[in-house]
Amino acid sequence: MNILVINAGSSSLKYQIINILSQQVLAKGLAERIGIEGGRIKHQYATNEGFGEYILEENLPEHATAFEAITGLLTHPDFGVIENPESIKAIGHRVVHGGEKFTKTQIITPEVKEAIKTLIPLAPLHNPANLIGIEASEKFFPNAVQVAVFDTAFFATLPEHAYRYAIPKKFYTDNSIRVYGFHGTSHKFVYNEAKKILKNDHLKAITIHLGNGASMAAVNENGESIDTTLGFGPLCGLAMGTRSGDIDPSVIFYMVEELGFSLQEVKNILNKESGMLGLGGSSDARDINEKCEQGDADAKLTLELYTYRIKKYIGSYFAALNGIDTIIFTAGLGENDAVVRSWSCKNLEALGIKLDEEANVKFNHTKVPVEIQAPESKVKILIIPTNEELEIAQQTYELIK
Amino acid sequence: MNILVINAGSSSLKYQIINILSQQVLAKGLAERIGIEGGRIKHQYATNEGFGEYILEENLPEHATAFEAITGLLTHPDFGVIENPESIKAIGHRVVHGGEKFTKTQIITPEVKEAIKTLIPLAPLHNPANLIGIEASEKFFPNAVQVAVFDTAFFATLPEHAYRYAIPKKFYTDNSIRVYGFHGTSHKFVYNEAKKILKNDHLKAITIHLGNGASMAAVNENGESIDTTLGFGPLCGLAMGTRSGDIDPSVIFYMVEELGFSLQEVKNILNKESGMLGLGGSSDARDINEKCEQGDADAKLTLELYTYRIKKYIGSYFAALNGIDTIIFTAGLGENDAVVRSWSCKNLEALGIKLDEEANVKFNHTKVPVEIQAPESKVKILIIPTNEELEIAQQTYELIK
Repeated sequence: MNILVINAGSSSLKYQIINILSQQVLAKGLAERIGIEGGRIKHQYATNEGFGEYILEENLPEHATAFEAITGLLTHPDFGVIENPESIKAIGHRVVHGGEKFTKTQIITPEVKEAIKTLIPLAPLHNPANLIGIEASEKFFPNAVQVAVFDTAFFATLPEHAYRYAIPKKFYTDNSIRVYGFHGTSHKFVYNEAKKILKNDHLKAITIHLGNGASMAAVNENGESIDTTLGFGPLCGLAMGTRSGDIDPSVIFYMVEELGFSLQEVKNILNKESGMLGLGGSSDARDINEKCEQGDADAKLTLELYTYRIKKYIGSYFAALNGIDTIIFTAGLGENDAVVRSWSCKNLEALGIKLDEEANVKFNHTKVPVEIQAPESKVKILIIPTNEELEIAQQTYELIK
Repeated sequence: MNILVINAGSSSLKYQIINILSQQVLAKGLAERIGIEGGRIKHQYATNEGFGEYILEENLPEHATAFEAITGLLTHPDFGVIENPESIKAIGHRVVHGGEKFTKTQIITPEVKEAIKTLIPLAPLHNPANLIGIEASEKFFPNAVQVAVFDTAFFATLPEHAYRYAIPKKFYTDNSIRVYGFHGTSHKFVYNEAKKILKNDHLKAITIHLGNGASMAAVNENGESIDTTLGFGPLCGLAMGTRSGDIDPSVIFYMVEELGFSLQEVKNILNKESGMLGLGGSSDARDINEKCEQGDADAKLTLELYTYRIKKYIGSYFAALNGIDTIIFTAGLGENDAVVRSWSCKNLEALGIKLDEEANVKFNHTKVPVEIQAPESKVKILIIPTNEELEIAQQTYELIK
């Protein structure tokens, strides 16, 4: 069975068709600049010699137009991989925020769409785009089962002492303010991969997803997440490309009261001008690494702070889990930044954590899961390339089969 | 030599006279409601049968009046302990915020006072009161050396990756926004006590100060603090009596933008209505413990969340220090709340941390340092009653001797 996976952003639309049995990607692509002049779809399709590529340049006034064009590409005699839209029986949609209501993957009904809508205040950037994607998808693939896979669902198992904030109770009961967590699909995927690789069905793991956004999760021996670094929104925990991560709330009050910024400005600064960009002058870790190698002090501090926070959360989650079997690095920097992995794991012998520095460098940019711990390390250290689309396809298939 | 120790608040003034050689307290007291109708000084003086007590009730329109009255009590033929003010050669003042300028205890000069004044924006509640106390003290004890002991000084050794936030660099360089830490005098005192008790000059320790405000510090084998939970202000880190501790900054933006609170209201909520009060209905841990015993779910959650945060920071600092020799509990709850100590240390065997539950209960409310780890625990767990006044007196003496 072929599953279409959709990840709709406010002006973009990512898609993949995955054959669920072979786990092969038949086609994938990205539609950009939806609703903006200069629309563009980069479409890739499997051939016997890897992926062929076709670029379609045409204005995409709305998501429905993009879906129409994508449907055209998927069924195109030259670039297509399916005969007609009807051959797609199931579509899995990434939906960022499932609130407390959606703790599992859901077949999309009018009620589910309504509920995703009511969650918009909690994810004002993402849920509206996800909904638009679902509705365009329903229009062009009316015979397919539409499924929602929530980025928050993996964190439904968090215990109350981990998901509550120490603020008046009514903000939780009346206003749903709590830790939700994000990147759940990725954390779940790499955790399950690690179980297979390490042949351990009762794995205690710390999963470290380091993309432009970044988060960590603590997963217990039953595969339940028990804590995560992102919270009510996507701003706390680790430092990120442009986001501050953890910060004393006093700083926010000070920036407004003493420095004269508006709260909106502070919000922008913490979301868009902070993290690696704020400290080191670039949100791209490759730039920071290069500058660091050239002796730039700000870049060095950026990497030190970035990895120190990871190290501290490794300690936190080691304590919360009372010991771990494995640490898993994934996503952009997790898979491709040997310095970040090395510094994050440095001087952790007291926790039984020791990296094989040579393997760490050798397997940088790995396309397959690898172990990079030193022989004497009690804790396995893995790099596992994440694959959120495959996870969404698998969850979609599990639900409808 | 007798040292007078002064801790001046906005409407209160605490004092102690300590004989530095015997470490005995000769007199101590608290002046309250300064500048408010109904002033009152509770004065206690050492006798052969413990402390005698005298309550003086008279209006104290300003700190100078309080100093005058205290001087009267200290030299009183019945309740006094010194012959005249001239016999006090040195006075140690607690000053909350020393910024980056004061990394050590200082003899107070006009320049030092000026610098404490310029730090008022960083400690708007405390530094002004501390300054008023210093000036009143100079007036009534003109012959004494006045010394400032800063609550932040112990954290001068924090490495940059621990004291910086991941926000644009200019907020540090231009606006001094960084981690300062507080309760330094207490952390330093109990760390040094532990060195003596455990006969280890290279102790790696986590110090846990749990008062109405609460903080933890990681101290390395050279006695240098390398991290602490309070930051730019006294709001982050552990949950406290009425303060939230760590919280996703997104919550603040949401409370203003979606829930319609003013930023000032949010600041008040996080500072004065959160923590134990917000979660469990009382800022007094004794109430929370009692309610918890009676089966109250909110009280139970409060203690679980409170202790889970301590546990997570134990893990963090264990990682940051690459192993520890000891955990030290101190201050109100640290010395007097067996449940908090027990839950904070539960299920940490993987870190070599195991409490002796019986000793933990038996030595609750101890007046002297005690060890409460189980025999098999690799990490020593201590309760050490804090004594900030003695620490201030000792540092004052060290400086002037």
